[in-house]
Amino acid sequence: MAGNSFGTLFRFTTFGESHGPAIGCIVDGVPSRLHLDEVFIQTFLDKRKPGQSKYVTQRREPDSVQIKSGVFEGLTTGTPIMLFIENEDQRSKDYGDIKDKFRPGHADFTYDAKYGIRDYRGGGRSSARETASRVAAGAVARRVLETAPGGGISIRAAMVQMGPHKVDRSRWDWAQVDQNPFFCPDPVMAEQWAEYLDGIRKAGSSVGAVIEVVASGVPAGWGEPIYDKLDSDLAQAMMTINAVKGVEIGAGFDAASLTGEENADQMRLGPDGKPVFLSNHAGGILGGISTGQDIVVRFAVKPTSSILTPRQTVDRFGNEADILTKGRHDPCVGIRAVPVGEAMMATVLADHFLRARALGQ
Amino acid sequence: MAGNSFGTLFRFTTFGESHGPAIGCIVDGVPSRLHLDEVFIQTFLDKRKPGQSKYVTQRREPDSVQIKSGVFEGLTTGTPIMLFIENEDQRSKDYGDIKDKFRPGHADFTYDAKYGIRDYRGGGRSSARETASRVAAGAVARRVLETAPGGGISIRAAMVQMGPHKVDRSRWDWAQVDQNPFFCPDPVMAEQWAEYLDGIRKAGSSVGAVIEVVASGVPAGWGEPIYDKLDSDLAQAMMTINAVKGVEIGAGFDAASLTGEENADQMRLGPDGKPVFLSNHAGGILGGISTGQDIVVRFAVKPTSSILTPRQTVDRFGNEADILTKGRHDPCVGIRAVPVGEAMMATVLADHFLRARALGQ
Amino acid sequence: MAGNSFGTLFRFTTFGESHGPAIGCIVDGVPSRLHLDEVFIQTFLDKRKPGQSKYVTQRREPDSVQIKSGVFEGLTTGTPIMLFIENEDQRSKDYGDIKDKFRPGHADFTYDAKYGIRDYRGGGRSSARETASRVAAGAVARRVLETAPGGGISIRAAMVQMGPHKVDRSRWDWAQVDQNPFFCPDPVMAEQWAEYLDGIRKAGSSVGAVIEVVASGVPAGWGEPIYDKLDSDLAQAMMTINAVKGVEIGAGFDAASLTGEENADQMRLGPDGKPVFLSNHAGGILGGISTGQDIVVRFAVKPTSSILTPRQTVDRFGNEADILTKGRHDPCVGIRAVPVGEAMMATVLADHFLRARALGQ
Amino acid sequence: MAGNSFGTLFRFTTFGESHGPAIGCIVDGVPSRLHLDEVFIQTFLDKRKPGQSKYVTQRREPDSVQIKSGVFEGLTTGTPIMLFIENEDQRSKDYGDIKDKFRPGHADFTYDAKYGIRDYRGGGRSSARETASRVAAGAVARRVLETAPGGGISIRAAMVQMGPHKVDRSRWDWAQVDQNPFFCPDPVMAEQWAEYLDGIRKAGSSVGAVIEVVASGVPAGWGEPIYDKLDSDLAQAMMTINAVKGVEIGAGFDAASLTGEENADQMRLGPDGKPVFLSNHAGGILGGISTGQDIVVRFAVKPTSSILTPRQTVDRFGNEADILTKGRHDPCVGIRAVPVGEAMMATVLADHFLRARALGQ
Repeated sequence: MAGNSFGTLFRFTTFGESHGPAIGCIVDGVPSRLHLDEVFIQTFLDKRKPGQSKYVTQRREPDSVQIKSGVFEGLTTGTPIMLFIENEDQRSKDYGDIKDKFRPGHADFTYDAKYGIRDYRGGGRSSARETASRVAAGAVARRVLETAPGGGISIRAAMVQMGPHKVDRSRWDWAQVDQNPFFCPDPVMAEQWAEYLDGIRKAGSSVGAVIEVVASGVPAGWGEPIYDKLDSDLAQAMMTINAVKGVEIGAGFDAASLTGEENADQMRLGPDGKPVFLSNHAGGILGGISTGQDIVVRFAVKPTSSILTPRQTVDRFGNEADILTKGRHDPCVGIRAVPVGEAMMATVLADHFLRARALGQ
Repeated sequence: MAGNSFGTLFRFTTFGESHGPAIGCIVDGVPSRLHLDEVFIQTFLDKRKPGQSKYVTQRREPDSVQIKSGVFEGLTTGTPIMLFIENEDQRSKDYGDIKDKFRPGHADFTYDAKYGIRDYRGGGRSSARETASRVAAGAVARRVLETAPGGGISIRAAMVQMGPHKVDRSRWDWAQVDQNPFFCPDPVMAEQWAEYLDGIRKAGSSVGAVIEVVASGVPAGWGEPIYDKLDSDLAQAMMTINAVKGVEIGAGFDAASLTGEENADQMRLGPDGKPVFLSNHAGGILGGISTGQDIVVRFAVKPTSSILTPRQTVDRFGNEADILTKGRHDPCVGIRAVPVGEAMMATVLADHFLRARALGQ
Repeated sequence: MAGNSFGTLFRFTTFGESHGPAIGCIVDGVPSRLHLDEVFIQTFLDKRKPGQSKYVTQRREPDSVQIKSGVFEGLTTGTPIMLFIENEDQRSKDYGDIKDKFRPGHADFTYDAKYGIRDYRGGGRSSARETASRVAAGAVARRVLETAPGGGISIRAAMVQMGPHKVDRSRWDWAQVDQNPFFCPDPVMAEQWAEYLDGIRKAGSSVGAVIEVVASGVPAGWGEPIYDKLDSDLAQAMMTINAVKGVEIGAGFDAASLTGEENADQMRLGPDGKPVFLSNHAGGILGGISTGQDIVVRFAVKPTSSILTPRQTVDRFGNEADILTKGRHDPCVGIRAVPVGEAMMATVLADHFLRARALGQ
Repeated sequence: MAGNSFGTLFRFTTFGESHGPAIGCIVDGVPSRLHLDEVFIQTFLDKRKPGQSKYVTQRREPDSVQIKSGVFEGLTTGTPIMLFIENEDQRSKDYGDIKDKFRPGHADFTYDAKYGIRDYRGGGRSSARETASRVAAGAVARRVLETAPGGGISIRAAMVQMGPHKVDRSRWDWAQVDQNPFFCPDPVMAEQWAEYLDGIRKAGSSVGAVIEVVASGVPAGWGEPIYDKLDSDLAQAMMTINAVKGVEIGAGFDAASLTGEENADQMRLGPDGKPVFLSNHAGGILGGISTGQDIVVRFAVKPTSSILTPRQTVDRFGNEADILTKGRHDPCVGIRAVPVGEAMMATVLADHFLRARALGQ
């Protein structure tokens, strides 16, 4: 209720500030007897980890996860799983400039307005560091999804736009996503982005991005019809990620320009006699419920607000001031949002899998 | 939990099918001693009511709301408010064609996959008729918001795009919104839309739209920081509206193309010595919490799936078929989504007002 | 959240005041394709209905339930089930005396303290009339439970104490429960109660009671282990019933006087090779989870606060006063609490059945 | 939802097994700018700590709490407070006997039935060790309550019955509670209990108890009227404590034997012109809402199930067996339930304080 938990049946609650002693989460609602260990979870954390290329922040955060409860002899027990990540790179430094000034685009002003106090060290609770907990929870969710009917759900994500530069979908190749530092499915565009982002980085600037998350193998019939729709839960999930300003499903905003004839996905029978759709403008969801097609979600990430150009602001005491955010920041924070988007997709699906099962589906 | 409730502290639960005896909702969490009567709620329902121009469905639904509980001698008592709307236009007719065939773009296929049964009459629970309950709940939410600090919250919405045609923001005039059947703030575009939609309607086709909802006067500090962010709750809220495929806040998807210098809203002191923002790319929300600026949300509505052109489909028995959806449908269902968007904004804000108050803000 | 909903997956929300136009509830989370009609629900409402003997209030409340949604052609559709009961016996009368005076033992004072306004007609929202909605929801829960593994869950309740007079458990006969107006399983005690309560009634007095609810056939393994324990949910459920002041499970308060040797239920193998317990001090629940034995819950109901003897009180304006509550009241409100206790047991079990199923049990 | 969280607005989620690496909780919904440090929380943990007299288990658990988030420079920040307690006394030993056999009275059988796996070391998740997390959360709740109107809420608890021996209420002296190892308010009975429990302990037996928790200074008007009643939340809260089998409010089960004249608490005006009650059979709650009188809750604790007398049981493989639970156990686990009862009262009140404030009370 207080804003640090996500999900209904598969539910996680996160804690921790970027420069406090630790971050982590409690994952509750995990069925028993699933194989789970720290190595599996670590795989996903490593994907999000900073310092892996020159295009992401050079902070060193090993992000080593420890399982503190809920797993016994390699199996989940059905009790809450506590995932604990110590903060190791807590440099002692002078935060004087951001202690009292509100950094434009950051949550400094609003946290101060809401709480009258804030842990100003590195953004505190509002730092994107919190997303490591989500990625850990997402790994657990994947384990849960392995037990779903069909058993073959795959969740993948890619960056499809950096600044104004969009990928060419005719060149889309999922195998490319792990071959470049941008999770880019288009090898040509990946090279363009490299050059473009290098310029942004050297200028001390930053740029936004669009991420696409795709889940394949989701059975038809998941999602609640009115207020806990699969798409509304996904929209909420993605919008909770730091810096996200927009979410769309399937054709998304382009659907506004389509006619009814163009938009509605027609159906035929497939070779196995089962219904197939002839297109997927719906993004795999109709009436809030999965159709069995790929679930396709895109979200827009704004440019990192921490830049090296001085910006106009005010401070807590009512004075005008300028501020320049030094430090080791991401020129395109959207890159590290890719595994976070995957994780949120996994937790939403795990939740709706359990909800569907509760109904006897 | 089962998908028919929305909100945490200000919370409503809806019921009813489009062709059942009644629809409505229970609104819970309403503080006591607020003035409330049926006339006030009816004002908002009338705005959404079908049959008001040739551009919306010609079904006659008087949508007369009755308050069945929670109000005594004109004042709320703090107990649940039950709002009841009888379905009057339940024409007895032959539903044979849609009884067994899945209409493309509708929820017929997914409801059947999930439940193995569906009330096929007019869409049943998946019909946009459910949104009348939201509009009624939204009216109650407005009453709650009148007691918020400042007391001057206004919530307005407009259609900003119909098919490919966008309004010219330099001509934006809120006073125009009530002067045309499209809730269009641009009088020139309103005339173009009239002609355009007439063509769509006569062709038995349909078209999508984009709606913008703006809340002014919201104090800084509303919203929970991580998972119940003000923007994630709004994204969820708008995505639950029938036919919505995308939601964005402030600069939204355009933020992906911006640099950090362009995007972050700088701050100065205003004439009264209070902080002011020099732009509003954030759409009034930073870190999930309101900044005090206008809260700006846009959502994309897909074209009505019921069209007069036959489409390919399959039926419940595994046969291929064609289907043509006759009846009195909206050529642009986005029009009637305008008051629904306003209502959802109102309920989200009322919820976060109560949540902020719980924290002593 | 606002106190008018109960349950997590099987969840109902009630509305209505005793002298408003209607009461009822929305039941959400009901799986699809269960047989349900008004006749079935009415059976349970009739059991609770006033006016059936001289020992209960002589108000006439036909309590005819109408299903307004969620059922199509005799089957549940998975969408919310709205149950609607019109208030018919809304006598127009002078409420002057209770309008401003706080009746001792009633919620008049606390509603006034909380809300600053109250519907004083017949108790308004705080009236036991609200329990009709629970009984209706309980009937739906029974339908859900019919689909549970084993399929043979029976829920029964009896009054085991009236005033100081307890039943003799050696004479317990479930068949007797429907043979007397007290739901008494002991035919000898039933006769004593008849005489005793007649005296109470004629004296314009009232008396308390203890009710026992027993669920048989519940599979082992239902209940969440820490905070949503089966017993803690039952304790909460029973304590929400008007006038209930105590709840116990199995040996209950008597367990305090037992030694570990006496209390713990030993186990052996039954004729079928399955574990059996040699006693049931646990009341069918260990560690919050069902054992497979009978689930046994008792709750204490205080005497009806409305009596014909004048009592000392104060009024809203700060004056001392005496009050005498006229009207058609129950000399032992515990009688009508019997079907309500059964209904709450049914809803708690239905909820935990769905929760267990979500976990793959 | 999955049973490891408690509360609505003031909400905590616990994790950890008795012999895992750590236990603890995340407390969410705590308003900002409250003074909080580990020393304050430790005070309450020390009260519950084992090994403090010969009457409680001699396990050494220092139970040193660490605050991992949510506090900055000695003040709460409004973000989740993570409380972490390392398990230090994890003796490596042979659990062979309890690994496969179900200890009567323990949750071994039901956890196995539900999950098909259990951490058998010392009870795992079902161990009363989990209550240390509640006590820590309760300390935070007390801080929240200090900011409530009036500011003078005190929460105290005492043991009022051990085995069949009840305190004499005419000798009740709160000052005595800290003067004996039983939290006994009656110095004469404390001596009798000492002798009695010594015999129980030497016999390797155990005995039950009744605890009374009293909250003074709670303003009138807290509690939601129907399903989140203050008394139903308290009943749920107390029933979640390990080994609790019954809960009552005010007169409790004795109310069943009273007449309406005896039970209802009459009212007069006090010296300050404010309403006063002439008795407190209601235990400070009417219609689910606080009256302003002392809130009085009692709960019954069953005898510790771990005893030195062999008991009949079965094992996981379907064999009959005998079991004798060695180890360092409490002869009367009710003693250590006293601070836990206080903690649960504190968390329920903190929750309802925030809820009342949300409504503008």
